[in-house]
Amino acid sequence: MANLALMRELQIPAKTKIVQLVMDGLGGLPRESDGKTELEAAHTPNLDTLAARSQLGLAVPVRAGVTPGSGPAHLALFGYDPLEYDIGRGVLEALGIGFDLQPEDVAARGNFCSVDADGNITDRRAGRIPTEVNQKLVALLRGIELPGVQTFVETVKEYRFVLVLRPTTGQTLHAHIADTDPQMLGVPPLPAEPQDEASKPTAALVNDWIAAAREILKDHHPANSLNLRGIAKDPGLPHFLDVFGLKAGAIATYPMYRGVAKLVGMNVLPVAGETVEDEVETLRAHWDAYDYFFFHVKKTDSAGEDGDFERKAGIIEHVDEVVVPAILALEPDVLIVTGDHSTPAALKSHSWHPVPTLLWSRYGRPDGAAEFGERACGRGSLGVFPATDEMPLALGNALRLTKYGA
Amino acid sequence: MANLALMRELQIPAKTKIVQLVMDGLGGLPRESDGKTELEAAHTPNLDTLAARSQLGLAVPVRAGVTPGSGPAHLALFGYDPLEYDIGRGVLEALGIGFDLQPEDVAARGNFCSVDADGNITDRRAGRIPTEVNQKLVALLRGIELPGVQTFVETVKEYRFVLVLRPTTGQTLHAHIADTDPQMLGVPPLPAEPQDEASKPTAALVNDWIAAAREILKDHHPANSLNLRGIAKDPGLPHFLDVFGLKAGAIATYPMYRGVAKLVGMNVLPVAGETVEDEVETLRAHWDAYDYFFFHVKKTDSAGEDGDFERKAGIIEHVDEVVVPAILALEPDVLIVTGDHSTPAALKSHSWHPVPTLLWSRYGRPDGAAEFGERACGRGSLGVFPATDEMPLALGNALRLTKYGA
Repeated sequence: MANLALMRELQIPAKTKIVQLVMDGLGGLPRESDGKTELEAAHTPNLDTLAARSQLGLAVPVRAGVTPGSGPAHLALFGYDPLEYDIGRGVLEALGIGFDLQPEDVAARGNFCSVDADGNITDRRAGRIPTEVNQKLVALLRGIELPGVQTFVETVKEYRFVLVLRPTTGQTLHAHIADTDPQMLGVPPLPAEPQDEASKPTAALVNDWIAAAREILKDHHPANSLNLRGIAKDPGLPHFLDVFGLKAGAIATYPMYRGVAKLVGMNVLPVAGETVEDEVETLRAHWDAYDYFFFHVKKTDSAGEDGDFERKAGIIEHVDEVVVPAILALEPDVLIVTGDHSTPAALKSHSWHPVPTLLWSRYGRPDGAAEFGERACGRGSLGVFPATDEMPLALGNALRLTKYGA
Repeated sequence: MANLALMRELQIPAKTKIVQLVMDGLGGLPRESDGKTELEAAHTPNLDTLAARSQLGLAVPVRAGVTPGSGPAHLALFGYDPLEYDIGRGVLEALGIGFDLQPEDVAARGNFCSVDADGNITDRRAGRIPTEVNQKLVALLRGIELPGVQTFVETVKEYRFVLVLRPTTGQTLHAHIADTDPQMLGVPPLPAEPQDEASKPTAALVNDWIAAAREILKDHHPANSLNLRGIAKDPGLPHFLDVFGLKAGAIATYPMYRGVAKLVGMNVLPVAGETVEDEVETLRAHWDAYDYFFFHVKKTDSAGEDGDFERKAGIIEHVDEVVVPAILALEPDVLIVTGDHSTPAALKSHSWHPVPTLLWSRYGRPDGAAEFGERACGRGSLGVFPATDEMPLALGNALRLTKYGA
């Protein structure tokens, strides 16, 4: 908050352009053969040349030692402390499938589950039913009608789905409602308990929907019941234009990242395909219309999650070859190259390691590093810094902040 | 708080083992002859080899520029912000002499002082009476009886003693009671003023004890009166098992450190003697029973306090030779080597300088440093970091934290 309030106070109009290039899960761990990380092993002449003229550092997404999910990690990159600004699980799940969530909607993550004759849970994931079965069941659940709200039920995959309630008669829905999943076997699902007075009517609607859904599912073992988790609304985050004075365009191919960008008030720009070349085309096409671009590359993270060191390094090389020169050709005033978190191939998962980050601007103090990599960033003049500092640093370097105090 | 709350939320069970090796007062300052600190001058082949495979940094115990006492410095190492969690002086003093303080006890630091015929203070330290005189006076004071409480009076040294009140009849004592020491000469001691309603009965007991004590002391000039300071109870700190999910064992030979470890819920393990070899034996004997070990080496600090550069370096060499290989032979998952604060021989006292720190885990990104020392740590990839981050970093590296958010 303090950070955002300060930015809101100090930001001034300017014609400068900022690009934040985010390679998802960029940070890695050394491989055995030569002790190099994915980024260090990748042949990245453009990033290395840029690194020599930039400031380097290691960005901490949430807190020391803490591994972030994608939602919190991106909030941090956008300048919002993820411990302060919380995007509910239901909202993230809806964004993740590209659902066009509205501010008045209530979203929940749903899990099909198995119950026995007494209604006690025997499998919290319904034997991980195939996605096709999920789709058939979801089609049935769409028939449930509730007074004063439109309901949406959408398949995610396997046992997971999303439920969204949208008011149709001007009422306000409230989502301080507990999970129904007791997180253990041998007991029945819990009711959807309202956590405050305002949420009671919405909780009643949710419980009515659950009752109708269980009636429909009762003969569909193993998916003969369900639980709802992370019932939530759009958290109403402060918007980029208001906080930073930036007209912001988001370029991302995956729904989750487009969704989070939308939550902070970015314009989500159309991308013709799934490749970084397509994303570069979008950047070129909208260059004149925005002050700031969030440019997201997903496949570094996917390769890390698959434990595929070589593929991750190869994707970084491709970004170096295609994306970096294209951005530089547009002559931004500030370019940050970073990741939302680390996804080392060695761990096949997100990790807590701080993220190699490069900040170039014509008003920087170049570190003169020989390359862009974890070790070079560990010696960089940005130090080990909170990822939430990236936006303030970008604004400062873009001459978009006035002096604090006289 | 946020930090501990986050750890409590994210910690997950695991079988990994963490060791935090604390050389008290480890950090130093350069000597004139060759510009090396105690740690840099010490011949430490094992720590140097480990440093090459570790991440280095400089830990700030409290805040930049602030010299910590041993209590706050250790709280920080254990993950508790010492500005938020306060151990009262009376409690620290009782722990420092190895008094077995109970949660319901009220402890105060006592100072013998000199007063004139009008009762005005003429010497706040009673001419620094010899410890043997203190012991004789304390024996007299033990005769004072109070209703409903057991009293303990224990010599610390010279003019200092500890008073502990322990309820015997189920009443709860409260310790929001001001110091009696006016911190100036020529005025009488103050009464022990209760600072809230609940503390009134305890303050009355304390004042009764003081009156009886002064009656006993009146003919024992220069120690013909006394003051009580830092009246306090066990602060009820959150416990290691609850916050970090760690079964914690403390290995320390000095009472103060055993006491602070006990306050955060560690099991204080028996050590057969005073040497680090004895401490290593304790570590080996209890290795299987704990998730985390606090391993404390006292003598580095004592040598620093004595201004003995060579002795301090020698003790570090001995730890390098005996303790480090013994710990590594047990194959911990995470090893942190650090200090609670700096005690440069050049200053003969604790200091504010951040503390050289090494973190080894199999999931780290080694800095490849040539040695373990202040300068190498100043260039390390952990940067200059709050000492309170050591436990979260240890937990992350031990794979004992789940992901934050989706």
